[in-house]
Amino acid sequence: MTHTLILLRHGQSEWNEKNLFTGWYDVTLTEKGRNEATRGGALLREAGLLPDVLHTSLLKRAIITANLALEEADRSWIPVNRSWRLNERHYGALQGKDKTQIRDEFGEEQFMVWRRSYDTPPPALADDSEFSQIGDPRYADLGDDAPRTECLKDVLERMLPYWEENIKADLAAGKTVLVTAHGNSLRALVKHLDGISDDDIAGLNIPTGIPLVYELDEDFRPTGPGKYLDPDAAAEAITAVANQGKH
Amino acid sequence: MTHTLILLRHGQSEWNEKNLFTGWYDVTLTEKGRNEATRGGALLREAGLLPDVLHTSLLKRAIITANLALEEADRSWIPVNRSWRLNERHYGALQGKDKTQIRDEFGEEQFMVWRRSYDTPPPALADDSEFSQIGDPRYADLGDDAPRTECLKDVLERMLPYWEENIKADLAAGKTVLVTAHGNSLRALVKHLDGISDDDIAGLNIPTGIPLVYELDEDFRPTGPGKYLDPDAAAEAITAVANQGKH
Repeated sequence: MTHTLILLRHGQSEWNEKNLFTGWYDVTLTEKGRNEATRGGALLREAGLLPDVLHTSLLKRAIITANLALEEADRSWIPVNRSWRLNERHYGALQGKDKTQIRDEFGEEQFMVWRRSYDTPPPALADDSEFSQIGDPRYADLGDDAPRTECLKDVLERMLPYWEENIKADLAAGKTVLVTAHGNSLRALVKHLDGISDDDIAGLNIPTGIPLVYELDEDFRPTGPGKYLDPDAAAEAITAVANQGKH
Repeated sequence: MTHTLILLRHGQSEWNEKNLFTGWYDVTLTEKGRNEATRGGALLREAGLLPDVLHTSLLKRAIITANLALEEADRSWIPVNRSWRLNERHYGALQGKDKTQIRDEFGEEQFMVWRRSYDTPPPALADDSEFSQIGDPRYADLGDDAPRTECLKDVLERMLPYWEENIKADLAAGKTVLVTAHGNSLRALVKHLDGISDDDIAGLNIPTGIPLVYELDEDFRPTGPGKYLDPDAAAEAITAVANQGKH
């Protein structure tokens, strides 16, 4: 028996459009992002891939993406689980900052370390920053463990328990699972699934709004590479993401 | 300590607009219904009534109403629970039928019995009807207990266990609870909360899209009448609902 896992990165957000580092800051989708989400749902419907259960982050760009995709796929009624463990990487002091400006101010090398290094987080975000999530009721359970910055390694470490305990349980019950989340929480999951090295993960981008489908064996290992439901659009979008922050 | 319970009936659906009996048939919202839902969320936001948890039926008109209202109130991230026990009354063989036509065919008296009698259900819907939900995967757990018709008494009896076990538990934990559901599942809940008699419940209508707020004491009894967040619009809408099916 194999398991079906569908990963979906949220559509374009207002800060994607403005080229700002977003992280845990809770911005909504643009009109383009909403259309991407609906198209993601249409791709699921056309492929006959109907999710039985949804897992999302606590951020509205992922939640609204799921709402719109499921409405289009006529699966609005499936059970929903949300967790901060699926949130985007916390971008620390970079949250709210312009990507091009950071590149100009700190140089290409430092910029790429912050963006793509596996284990070097940006400087921590001050709790009194307007871009901080400290005090937000949705993270009350985290108490003082709430992150002030994260590298991809941190994301993987806080995401994995949710994969092990929550998502695997639904897959084991024979359910087709949809995970709507973020560039970095999904990169962390794909790194784990595909056994990508700490170095090679830097080169992996996941495009927005295009379902990425894994078939998993009984040990929850991929039986082959994950497949985008629209491979041409995915290839094009991956190139565009790689160019972010360039002039 | 008191508890806060917010009831929200879904906005106008495509079959409300067409004047058809809907029941468990899963139709979506009209543009007007979407605007009602968003306005319901704005009323919550303006009143500072921020839900901590959502309970919905398994029908998209209630789910999408919740999605839109919570997006407007900036509470998309709250946990969600869905249950068939919050579904609209199953309208039996009337599902898919025109209300005016039924009134003309069977007469005013029979029409009002089917619409408003507490304990007389319409004839059962045949399992092979295009309007039947038998075989729908979302009701798989119900097996052969899935209803083929319901009167309001039936709705109350299948809704109460969910109120007792699920909604009360969230209220007891100090959470502000939002229930988005349907004309008859909410009438059943209000009947229970306000101790309305089997006869008097026939005269109670709940308008669409306007949050109805109850403060409950520690025994989950209302400390006063439920309050609509827009009382004028509620009064106007209640009159309009009462005139449904008239020429």
